[in-house]
Amino acid sequence: MDKILRVNMTDLTTSVETAPIEWAGLGGRALTSTIVAKEVEPTCHPLGPYNKLVFAPGLLSGTAASNSGRLSAGAKSPLTGGIKESNVGGTAAQMFARLGIQALIIEGMPTTDNWYSLVLDKNGVTLQEERGLLGLGNFAVVEAIQSLLGKKTGVICIGPAGEKLLTAANMSVKDPSGKLRSHGRGGLGAVMGSKRIKFIAIDDEGAPGITIADPEKFKAASRIFTKAMMDHPVSGQGLPTYGTNILVNILNEAGGLPTRNFTDGQFEGHDLISGETMHDTIVARGGKPRHGCHAGCVIQCSQVYNDKDGNYLTSGFEYETIWGFGANCCIKDLDDIAMADSIMDDIGIDSIETAVAFGVAMEAGILPFGDGKEVVRILRDEIGKGTPLGRIIGSGAGSVGRTYSMTKVPVVKNQGIPAYDPRSVKGIGITYCTSPMGADHTAGYTIATNILNVGGQVDPLKKDGQVELSRNLQIATAAIDSTGMCIFIAFPALDIPECLPALIDMLNARYGAELTGDDVVSLGKNILKTERNFNLAAGLTSAHDRLPEFFKTNPVAPHQAVWDFTDEEIDAFWNF
Amino acid sequence: MDKILRVNMTDLTTSVETAPIEWAGLGGRALTSTIVAKEVEPTCHPLGPYNKLVFAPGLLSGTAASNSGRLSAGAKSPLTGGIKESNVGGTAAQMFARLGIQALIIEGMPTTDNWYSLVLDKNGVTLQEERGLLGLGNFAVVEAIQSLLGKKTGVICIGPAGEKLLTAANMSVKDPSGKLRSHGRGGLGAVMGSKRIKFIAIDDEGAPGITIADPEKFKAASRIFTKAMMDHPVSGQGLPTYGTNILVNILNEAGGLPTRNFTDGQFEGHDLISGETMHDTIVARGGKPRHGCHAGCVIQCSQVYNDKDGNYLTSGFEYETIWGFGANCCIKDLDDIAMADSIMDDIGIDSIETAVAFGVAMEAGILPFGDGKEVVRILRDEIGKGTPLGRIIGSGAGSVGRTYSMTKVPVVKNQGIPAYDPRSVKGIGITYCTSPMGADHTAGYTIATNILNVGGQVDPLKKDGQVELSRNLQIATAAIDSTGMCIFIAFPALDIPECLPALIDMLNARYGAELTGDDVVSLGKNILKTERNFNLAAGLTSAHDRLPEFFKTNPVAPHQAVWDFTDEEIDAFWNF
Repeated sequence: MDKILRVNMTDLTTSVETAPIEWAGLGGRALTSTIVAKEVEPTCHPLGPYNKLVFAPGLLSGTAASNSGRLSAGAKSPLTGGIKESNVGGTAAQMFARLGIQALIIEGMPTTDNWYSLVLDKNGVTLQEERGLLGLGNFAVVEAIQSLLGKKTGVICIGPAGEKLLTAANMSVKDPSGKLRSHGRGGLGAVMGSKRIKFIAIDDEGAPGITIADPEKFKAASRIFTKAMMDHPVSGQGLPTYGTNILVNILNEAGGLPTRNFTDGQFEGHDLISGETMHDTIVARGGKPRHGCHAGCVIQCSQVYNDKDGNYLTSGFEYETIWGFGANCCIKDLDDIAMADSIMDDIGIDSIETAVAFGVAMEAGILPFGDGKEVVRILRDEIGKGTPLGRIIGSGAGSVGRTYSMTKVPVVKNQGIPAYDPRSVKGIGITYCTSPMGADHTAGYTIATNILNVGGQVDPLKKDGQVELSRNLQIATAAIDSTGMCIFIAFPALDIPECLPALIDMLNARYGAELTGDDVVSLGKNILKTERNFNLAAGLTSAHDRLPEFFKTNPVAPHQAVWDFTDEEIDAFWNF
Repeated sequence: MDKILRVNMTDLTTSVETAPIEWAGLGGRALTSTIVAKEVEPTCHPLGPYNKLVFAPGLLSGTAASNSGRLSAGAKSPLTGGIKESNVGGTAAQMFARLGIQALIIEGMPTTDNWYSLVLDKNGVTLQEERGLLGLGNFAVVEAIQSLLGKKTGVICIGPAGEKLLTAANMSVKDPSGKLRSHGRGGLGAVMGSKRIKFIAIDDEGAPGITIADPEKFKAASRIFTKAMMDHPVSGQGLPTYGTNILVNILNEAGGLPTRNFTDGQFEGHDLISGETMHDTIVARGGKPRHGCHAGCVIQCSQVYNDKDGNYLTSGFEYETIWGFGANCCIKDLDDIAMADSIMDDIGIDSIETAVAFGVAMEAGILPFGDGKEVVRILRDEIGKGTPLGRIIGSGAGSVGRTYSMTKVPVVKNQGIPAYDPRSVKGIGITYCTSPMGADHTAGYTIATNILNVGGQVDPLKKDGQVELSRNLQIATAAIDSTGMCIFIAFPALDIPECLPALIDMLNARYGAELTGDDVVSLGKNILKTERNFNLAAGLTSAHDRLPEFFKTNPVAPHQAVWDFTDEEIDAFWNF
């Protein structure tokens, strides 16, 4: 895995390069952030010719290691103005790895209005003009590519939102059953749209595949690692049974379920949208409560959700989406939310950013709280078609807030705050503030320790220990995001002593290396500092490592909690 | 002039305070920026309760000194996110001064949805609930206040744009003939709207008036000063005859007239919108080619522009507005632009920001270049009514650029770049980059020296001397903005040796002080540094002291000039 594919969209050339020595041992987020930091001018316009879009599979992607099938994408984000890494399941990471592609770098911008597609295969990368699929939704795009190039073809594509360069647009990646997973956050779909690439098809027929330096050692470590995943109650039982949506009732109970655009911490309709209700609904309608987003996943927190008539409606129906349109927008009908989820997948827009944007829109009076039918209409007829209102909401929560001059706009670095109230779960607030990605729960998921008591216990309502918790988790997460591993391996890694050593053993066995735990921590620290330095050079400062004012002034029920960290306490995060 | 009026909109109280000793000798911009820097948390939400709106007349306002009738307003800008000072003619500054009001500070925010008005008079300030005038345009508001409180009543008010908190909203100030002048830039109308104040009425009946410490010295200096104003060809002849719009042909000739959203530097229709054409049209239709925006103005660069039937259409019809909708939006019909100007005055929105926003909107394909009728329709039916499209455009050029994901968006610190192309008039580009106000030609009007050969000559197309030119002018302007003087006094001040000493003599005679030229320079430097420090604390950095990328990459005809300053060269501005 040492090929760098480079595509220049200005002069429409492609090349295959050998990775420079300093990129050896880097994968996933470590590699995308390193390349972006090295090759992208931090102050460039994110939708102009000087931004680059970089894809990199994780270090263990393509191997038999459980849950290692994630693909990182990086660029300067048009949403945050800072560096962005977003990773995704689906089939692409493993195909990249089997093809020996360490990274794909897309740079420049067409000088005409033409659109293009890329095909990756054992010979490298081919650039073609694209006409037929323009304007189509992601589902039609995937179907068309599969008809043309075969069922097994991997796909990364953008829908109408990406074509219109909406800053909440995502990039979609085909999963093993032909459904979609998303590089959701930070508007990377708009970056792909700015390069005028509608899709990337991947054909791994005849790929060299993966070489494992020490196969026996790898197998032994992999067995231990997988056992740890299965043994932990969260990754082994909770997530497989109820999906991530198990969290609705848990966060509601904790008073940390942001409700009515972050006005309350509990939602009266929580039972109607909970993981338990969803599970029963799925079973009753003949859907699948378990479904893997990529081959080799042993958690299978995805699902297939059917409509009332038993027809497929959506999959990959996540807690954050259900929270966002449920509690945050006060929509009590899970079917409305599922319909919204399906439309967002099709038009290719981040369901978290869009849900937070709708919450602000509702508070601004654009539509009533709780009106799921109007949400569906706006998604389809306004955002999907790029009307002025559609562009406002499709550009994210900050866009709605600015355009409607709202003061209660839950964003950090202009990225919408996800499904955990930082006043009542304070550790996650530190993550929102300090992550170079903007408000991102996955960057340092303190919910594990604050709420689920994984990896110890840190009282969510007190300030004590939160900065350290977030720091440790962000460092570990940056490293995990480089391996291709799903973030949910953090649950066993935090609680089961054999888990993390087994992960490191797999890395060493794969590459014939001798990494230690300390090396992994160093890697995580380096990634965070690289990202932070990019942001500082782009013009972000510690003044951007802050929650919006209203979290300090508006207490949230039931704990009447406020955000009470001083600037100095927050900035201490970077003391490492 | 030593009363500070303070209005707290949260608890609806008012108070009259004595100015603290450190504010002695400060007026206009020096005072508003000092108060904002001292009392406003730099990271606060500009439309929330922690921002403050400050008004202060200049040090010479209320005296008989020519052109001294300008009022400064300051706050944290909702457009730039930094500090803002915007000054205006009209009758208010002189009334403030005669009432002995050094500053009016409006803080807090109502806890209900009620709206209010303020009345300033010899007894202080009275706060009242306001209902009847809500939703009305500025012309109707002024008329209603005059009917109610008398023809002489001073008025500061906001129109529908300010009520809707659009970030391009301005504050309007009544001029001596009952027409309007504007605190145009930076969205201060939205700040006034956020405080929920529809208007401020001023009654100076029985005011204590102005005391001059040394009346004879004042009179003598004033005569010299006025003579210098009349003797200089720009302030004495060019501006009085053709208004500021004399610049259309001059800038077109220089290749610095930004055309078609800053694509070209010359406009084929320049003759149709020029100051010369405007002058002849005004005369032919029975309008007034000369008109003062405040009592005591000897330049009278304003005018009364009638429609084809000889009925009043607009006044205060400035070069920047005519450029903005003319060359920048390619509208060749001066009547369409005059109609747009009148509507913008009525709804209360900055004509520069809005014109630049329309240029971006045209490039985005929202409406065709050159379509003046559609501009008028959008102003009236979309911006005036706060539709989604209206809010996008009414939030300024950066808003249109972000919402439509455009890369060619002429803004600095999110404020639209005015009527002089920085590639072909490089000194003004340094002012746009470095002014703490965002892109603002008045902050350091290098056009004087680059184009009009006032105060020497610095080749507009070369980099040499531009940073120093802009620095000297910004320092001088900050000081002038504190005196209440119109910026056009810079023309004689730069060329006629007696002018500046006479200005200083007037200050000394007014206050019994002993200021020197060095003191004035120190004042200017201190103001700029105070403002810059506020911005740094608010999260702006030197990365925000930059022109947009396209100025570097897209050469502008006819000189094929690009913006070629290095970051280091720009940052050297702050070496003082």
